[in-house]
Amino acid sequence: MSTKGVVVRNIERADAGTIAELARHGVATVHEAQGRTGLMRPYMRPIYAGASIAGSAITVTVAPGDNWMIHVAVEVARAGDIVVVVPESDCTDGYFGELLATSLAARGVKGLIIEAGCRDVRPLTEMKFPVWSRAISAQGTVKATIGSVNVPVVCAGVAIHPGDVIVADDDGVAVVPRQSADQVVKASAERIAKEEINRARLAKGELGLDIYGMRKALADKGLRYVEGPVDWGSRKI
Amino acid sequence: MSTKGVVVRNIERADAGTIAELARHGVATVHEAQGRTGLMRPYMRPIYAGASIAGSAITVTVAPGDNWMIHVAVEVARAGDIVVVVPESDCTDGYFGELLATSLAARGVKGLIIEAGCRDVRPLTEMKFPVWSRAISAQGTVKATIGSVNVPVVCAGVAIHPGDVIVADDDGVAVVPRQSADQVVKASAERIAKEEINRARLAKGELGLDIYGMRKALADKGLRYVEGPVDWGSRKI
Amino acid sequence: MSTKGVVVRNIERADAGTIAELARHGVATVHEAQGRTGLMRPYMRPIYAGASIAGSAITVTVAPGDNWMIHVAVEVARAGDIVVVVPESDCTDGYFGELLATSLAARGVKGLIIEAGCRDVRPLTEMKFPVWSRAISAQGTVKATIGSVNVPVVCAGVAIHPGDVIVADDDGVAVVPRQSADQVVKASAERIAKEEINRARLAKGELGLDIYGMRKALADKGLRYVEGPVDWGSRKI
Amino acid sequence: MSTKGVVVRNIERADAGTIAELARHGVATVHEAQGRTGLMRPYMRPIYAGASIAGSAITVTVAPGDNWMIHVAVEVARAGDIVVVVPESDCTDGYFGELLATSLAARGVKGLIIEAGCRDVRPLTEMKFPVWSRAISAQGTVKATIGSVNVPVVCAGVAIHPGDVIVADDDGVAVVPRQSADQVVKASAERIAKEEINRARLAKGELGLDIYGMRKALADKGLRYVEGPVDWGSRKI
Amino acid sequence: MSTKGVVVRNIERADAGTIAELARHGVATVHEAQGRTGLMRPYMRPIYAGASIAGSAITVTVAPGDNWMIHVAVEVARAGDIVVVVPESDCTDGYFGELLATSLAARGVKGLIIEAGCRDVRPLTEMKFPVWSRAISAQGTVKATIGSVNVPVVCAGVAIHPGDVIVADDDGVAVVPRQSADQVVKASAERIAKEEINRARLAKGELGLDIYGMRKALADKGLRYVEGPVDWGSRKI
Amino acid sequence: MSTKGVVVRNIERADAGTIAELARHGVATVHEAQGRTGLMRPYMRPIYAGASIAGSAITVTVAPGDNWMIHVAVEVARAGDIVVVVPESDCTDGYFGELLATSLAARGVKGLIIEAGCRDVRPLTEMKFPVWSRAISAQGTVKATIGSVNVPVVCAGVAIHPGDVIVADDDGVAVVPRQSADQVVKASAERIAKEEINRARLAKGELGLDIYGMRKALADKGLRYVEGPVDWGSRKI
Repeated sequence: MSTKGVVVRNIERADAGTIAELARHGVATVHEAQGRTGLMRPYMRPIYAGASIAGSAITVTVAPGDNWMIHVAVEVARAGDIVVVVPESDCTDGYFGELLATSLAARGVKGLIIEAGCRDVRPLTEMKFPVWSRAISAQGTVKATIGSVNVPVVCAGVAIHPGDVIVADDDGVAVVPRQSADQVVKASAERIAKEEINRARLAKGELGLDIYGMRKALADKGLRYVEGPVDWGSRKI
Repeated sequence: MSTKGVVVRNIERADAGTIAELARHGVATVHEAQGRTGLMRPYMRPIYAGASIAGSAITVTVAPGDNWMIHVAVEVARAGDIVVVVPESDCTDGYFGELLATSLAARGVKGLIIEAGCRDVRPLTEMKFPVWSRAISAQGTVKATIGSVNVPVVCAGVAIHPGDVIVADDDGVAVVPRQSADQVVKASAERIAKEEINRARLAKGELGLDIYGMRKALADKGLRYVEGPVDWGSRKI
Repeated sequence: MSTKGVVVRNIERADAGTIAELARHGVATVHEAQGRTGLMRPYMRPIYAGASIAGSAITVTVAPGDNWMIHVAVEVARAGDIVVVVPESDCTDGYFGELLATSLAARGVKGLIIEAGCRDVRPLTEMKFPVWSRAISAQGTVKATIGSVNVPVVCAGVAIHPGDVIVADDDGVAVVPRQSADQVVKASAERIAKEEINRARLAKGELGLDIYGMRKALADKGLRYVEGPVDWGSRKI
Repeated sequence: MSTKGVVVRNIERADAGTIAELARHGVATVHEAQGRTGLMRPYMRPIYAGASIAGSAITVTVAPGDNWMIHVAVEVARAGDIVVVVPESDCTDGYFGELLATSLAARGVKGLIIEAGCRDVRPLTEMKFPVWSRAISAQGTVKATIGSVNVPVVCAGVAIHPGDVIVADDDGVAVVPRQSADQVVKASAERIAKEEINRARLAKGELGLDIYGMRKALADKGLRYVEGPVDWGSRKI
Repeated sequence: MSTKGVVVRNIERADAGTIAELARHGVATVHEAQGRTGLMRPYMRPIYAGASIAGSAITVTVAPGDNWMIHVAVEVARAGDIVVVVPESDCTDGYFGELLATSLAARGVKGLIIEAGCRDVRPLTEMKFPVWSRAISAQGTVKATIGSVNVPVVCAGVAIHPGDVIVADDDGVAVVPRQSADQVVKASAERIAKEEINRARLAKGELGLDIYGMRKALADKGLRYVEGPVDWGSRKI
Repeated sequence: MSTKGVVVRNIERADAGTIAELARHGVATVHEAQGRTGLMRPYMRPIYAGASIAGSAITVTVAPGDNWMIHVAVEVARAGDIVVVVPESDCTDGYFGELLATSLAARGVKGLIIEAGCRDVRPLTEMKFPVWSRAISAQGTVKATIGSVNVPVVCAGVAIHPGDVIVADDDGVAVVPRQSADQVVKASAERIAKEEINRARLAKGELGLDIYGMRKALADKGLRYVEGPVDWGSRKI
């Protein structure tokens, strides 16, 4: 089936409990737990600090400078979803603002990821509707060209299928394929358990070199210690 | 008259009430109300969140790495003005800091727009003197080369005449030509009135597709709905 | 001595009182006081606002996408130090997060400067461990290739020797050569004293043009004043 | 099947004749013919002008600063293939140079696409081995961390499956899904036929406004013609 | 008159002889001769080396990703003109290619300046139709939204009125206001005459320090000479 | 000795024969031979293809937008030198053009490295005076602020002492500390000898996997081969 000019009304979603667990674990842990994959490029930044969400991806492709399809996506989105907007070419226009957020919030949508610009930053912050975007821009958009909703997309370097789980917090945005969400929750929990033990030891002053047993491997690689101080020259820039 | 090495002491300004209305409406509304024009590029960002101002532009051209002319501009600026600083070529140096802000604040200037760098971010935040800049940088500047004050400039992609109204908030910076400021206030107010009605309907769960009557136009463009779910393949990245 | 694959355990440090003074003066003043040198490029930004520190540089070179040597550096760092991490080529990966910060904090390290990415922004903010980085990214790193600790490096455009004093606040990051730290403290204090006098005069409305005696030099350069208003044309963009 | 640390020896390829047709049509035509999809971001540039190729994608994921897996890919590549290298995070290091090109050329590989750096530009130009990269850099890489060969990847914004057809020329790089390659050839040929007729008419001075019948649609959108000249003001910047 | 959705058929142009002189002098000289103003930002680059042109600006504003108005501009352009295309927000799409170039060439247009992308680089190079753009991209555009032709614009940082003279070569693009074109030709010629004398003296080994009499001014600024060599330290990075 | 406002007339240089050998080996080899260090960032690009030089660094610090000190450096440079220009903060202005090149060429200087802009690209290409720069720009500069000549600098990420050897070709720019130049020549020669043998074997179709004996290490890391083809899903983007 062609993915051009098509809106898929229904998608499969991950289990709500699974999604809640992923939100609780956060981007850094989830990204590590699935083998250091699925992280969007670091230019995707939250418009305000402190938001931390997870939800099912409603994907939207839009023409540059044209936000028509976001209106179409609103109808398809359900409570707990996250809308993911991808322009067909690089664009920083302000596709999304307070009115669309009001509409999505009314349907229970948790937030928006957009590889373009967002505006109305202060109202969005006040209404606590989180957005991760590559730019903040008031630049208005038109409604002239159609795109698609709920087709596979690439957003900020990551391939996403509709219904994949989006995890977003102050560290950025990660994508978990729907089919492996349960497995990633499990790996995340294991990772966190291990980290808690290590955190306690590190907080007491134990060294990672010892906790993780790195000294031999470093020596094998040829790392040399010298006592110092070394005089590297009386540079006076 | 040549615009090189010249300081124009007096400029025409828009009506104070008009300027206050533009401040109240904010960047996104004003930009839309004047036909989606006049928005500076999105790399112009506030040094702290929450400031929202409008004022008459005092324009300043400066050599790269040379802030001499900002000192000249202080004398020309009046209460309610906004100083707009444009380097003659790309530069991120810290042209502006606490001392110049103290001087401008003493004269009632509302803020500064600079297509370069700003420093003393913490003191400026504490004294509530807002700056929109393309960079934050402590890099010092010299006082060796003259420029101009109150001549036409291009700042962050927008042509500005002295006395044009600058509107700046968390969404960026917009420029309203002085001659059309009243008209833009009126169009902004109409836009806001309409948005308030739509916001209420959207908040109740009505769809933009219906409020704005988009369904037929989308269908005419060929948009197709499929029920789904669609199996896009068992991708396992 | 080659600087590859070597860890220097002991370095010379500046006097603790001197370092405290540099922290108090801040980046902009220190940078000016040492002749406008030593400022890192403005892409180095704090992960949260308000932190302001100074300390002795523990330098670390790392392979792209490999944070092994930061673990090695922990052992060498002492209370009051600041760890400076430089990848061998441009990289935005998230080399540093909460666990390493816990370890460094346990040793009294004041903060971290990294010309790459940082993650766990919220936990780091909550534990008040400040980081200045070129990116925020959750992207994980490996432990496969060795680098060096406490060798001369170039970070964000500035040459640094181990033990040089790092000063970092909301304006960015400055480097003060260890040998000239006392002299820079003195010059900073003089500068601040002078600025306090000028700030008071500027706050009362005196002009920098008069305080700094700039009028004659500007006239000598050919600056012309015209009364205005000037009609630059009825531009109607 | 997990895509981490795996090498798939055999892939399905498009028909050689089909691939040759796509090469002949070139990037701009192919991209349009498949509905304006599949174009890599414009930072992917050829290291020398004039090369124009198409081939089956051998995909390679690599760690940042680590070119080990390119050596692995050589064995899997066949005559007519194009190797596509994607680092796991942003990197500009010089992963690829003359020796690897010699090895790939010996196997009949047509070229390389790398979302990172390339070096040995002069020798590669002389031996006519074309490379499209995001950077030219001599920065050397290590061989310490494994990745994968012939798994789905995202390169410069485009999702690629092994065996998809890569088309690359001076305009950039396009990806044609293997399954739709024949259909894209057909659509390309139709497009070119139509363009040839239009080119002849345009060359004679006929207007696109008339050939494409645009005048009514423009008028319907509200486009107004004025005779002019218009005096926009005696701007004197 | 509003500048939205309007096409101005007739514009005033500079004298053809004047334009030819500006082409002969080139970008660097013309930019200097008019007081170091009017140069577009350096991201505007020629798609092939060696072209050097001047002509009257036909200005075109376009929506992002929409090249409709270029077709409109073709009809308005005359022999000797240069078409200048400006998107309403940042965009790198390939608005312009071989067919439009064929059409413009048929009308005697000398070249195109576009603050966006260009495609069909090889055919354009072969037909010697020069383009200066901010990107090379095959990304296709739509025809859905109108803009304007022959209204004032800002392109790559420079304000342009229709009929201003565009000068473009391997150094970039400069804009000369129509009204001052004659004066700039004169100043350019004087500058070139002076440079020719200096070039001859420099070629014989005379120093600029002496030709331009710089030694005293440098000494007055405090420049000190030391014999050297100076030992800056035995740095061993 | 302070490095501000000082010109060091005499510097120590590496042996002319050594420098010639480094030029012959080229950037990629030299960079590898000294342990993958000393490479400038990849934004340093030649203004024309094919130049390949080495020489002793005459270092020059300049204010942003001010090329005065290049004139000072001319007098100090000797036949065989390469002038290295570093602005005190990021700048793309056209500091250098045909006249200065004529003067340097008259003294036998081989080329120029500038972490800023260069102009007069065509004349420089015709007179075969090679420049590596971060930008091409006609933007003119002033002569108002002094800097230094032959002091330690950081250029494009690399620390350079006066007299260090600069190697530059189509792959970029590398810096070899003067004191280790002989040793790097030796290591380069060894590397080239080894590469010649490997190139011959690779050209015959032998695999790097076998020549370099990589198979066991890859298996130890866990690399798995599967025969394939694998069906990754019928994706149809």
